[in-house]
Amino acid sequence: MSRQVGYLGPPGSFGEQAALGYAPAGALVPFTSHGAVVAAIGSGLIEEGLAAVENSLAGTVPETVDAIIQTEGVFIRGELILPIEHCLIAAPGTSLAEVDLVLSHPSALAQCRTYLETHLPGARLEAALSTAAAVETAVQTRAAAAIGTRRAASLRGGAILAEAVQDVAQNSTRFVVLAASDAPPTGDDKTSFAFTVDHDRPGTLIGVLSELSNRQINLTRIESRPSREELGVYVFMIDCQGHREDTVVAEALGAVQKQAHYFRLFGSYPRYADAAT
Amino acid sequence: MSRQVGYLGPPGSFGEQAALGYAPAGALVPFTSHGAVVAAIGSGLIEEGLAAVENSLAGTVPETVDAIIQTEGVFIRGELILPIEHCLIAAPGTSLAEVDLVLSHPSALAQCRTYLETHLPGARLEAALSTAAAVETAVQTRAAAAIGTRRAASLRGGAILAEAVQDVAQNSTRFVVLAASDAPPTGDDKTSFAFTVDHDRPGTLIGVLSELSNRQINLTRIESRPSREELGVYVFMIDCQGHREDTVVAEALGAVQKQAHYFRLFGSYPRYADAAT
Repeated sequence: MSRQVGYLGPPGSFGEQAALGYAPAGALVPFTSHGAVVAAIGSGLIEEGLAAVENSLAGTVPETVDAIIQTEGVFIRGELILPIEHCLIAAPGTSLAEVDLVLSHPSALAQCRTYLETHLPGARLEAALSTAAAVETAVQTRAAAAIGTRRAASLRGGAILAEAVQDVAQNSTRFVVLAASDAPPTGDDKTSFAFTVDHDRPGTLIGVLSELSNRQINLTRIESRPSREELGVYVFMIDCQGHREDTVVAEALGAVQKQAHYFRLFGSYPRYADAAT
Repeated sequence: MSRQVGYLGPPGSFGEQAALGYAPAGALVPFTSHGAVVAAIGSGLIEEGLAAVENSLAGTVPETVDAIIQTEGVFIRGELILPIEHCLIAAPGTSLAEVDLVLSHPSALAQCRTYLETHLPGARLEAALSTAAAVETAVQTRAAAAIGTRRAASLRGGAILAEAVQDVAQNSTRFVVLAASDAPPTGDDKTSFAFTVDHDRPGTLIGVLSELSNRQINLTRIESRPSREELGVYVFMIDCQGHREDTVVAEALGAVQKQAHYFRLFGSYPRYADAAT
């Protein structure tokens, strides 16, 4: 039996594209939210899953980061960067001139605002729960179009009215591969961890970050998430270069842990090869 | 003529609640997005505006932070913290048992997931562009309810089926007051600024943050936003204690500016009195 790999569905979503890229031979299992993918790994229902963590335009995907922080037993085993191309999709035979309604997830509508204002200034915008759901509705609705993936168009029998309709051509999303354990060292790895510090004193965050910089470990990402207790209290999530088994990284992590109130290591994994391009 | 104060509408939104709290006698002007509020101040169309920057559960409001960073001539003159209470609203006479459709902005639906799963497990969820728009639709639709504000219910003639339906009772949103200039010192102030640093070398971020901690200036918030160029390159937005005219703060800002590639000061403003409670 091929391994089960969870993703944010339905089929035709960017999540499915990422899962196909990571595990072309896997049994792909759609979930209704990134949080549900993370929970299914935490409970052992599936072996691996992909969840989006950040987009080059929109920034962090809060739901994923929060679910990873809140779910015990979930580790990061890999990462993958997917270029995002939004298409304008409608029932076959529909012309751009007839479109008076555009459906999509609010984030996708926002990412294509300039295109929509320029090419469809009179069209009404309507929110959908996902780009894939929007495509499904649009191909069944007269004079409607949806913002979605090329694959969703193909799965739902939609025609592509325009390609690459997002405002900024360079648009990519980073996914992490989640599992019950992380990955062995490869020589070009990253490590992710989260912590909280005493927030009422100056310099507590810097004390922690210095444990990395003093050892010449590059910080590739720092993200602050609300503690869900009160405004102004944050959980910091850090990605840095190196593997947790590397001597300097292991030392730095030990020193961070000593200074932190809360500390959790999400593991180490190979850096995505095309990440820097 | 009373001063014009912009907010994210329509009337009945949390944005209007915040604007009413800040300027009860102001001429409140609704806009269709936080970005539009910021742009209207940048262009001088309105004198002041409120925009949500972070929520205690959801975290940052990326649209606002990005708009502030990208719009010239916009300063932060104040802040305000609004407790968020979601209500379940329907046409008068509707009972909870009949509700088979729940409408709201996807963020509001997500914030009330536990309530919805417990009390309305069979109801279909449908996305709307705002909570206020959801309430307007729900009161006109049989067997439908919306998640929205108490004020939206009153404005649209809706009945409140349940109060405080959000999953976590402690839910508040911080708004900033934006204008063409910031505020004079009061003795209990905060200062906000943004910067980028060389991201390929270890310790560049820490070098900047140390300029604050070395002077015992407390960092109240650090937020990383994508540069919109490539993944892994961020603009950092910082809130710290003190006013830009305070000697140590002025020195720290000067030192930060020297180390940064990009630097922008959004100004100083009185700390919200109830912020710590």
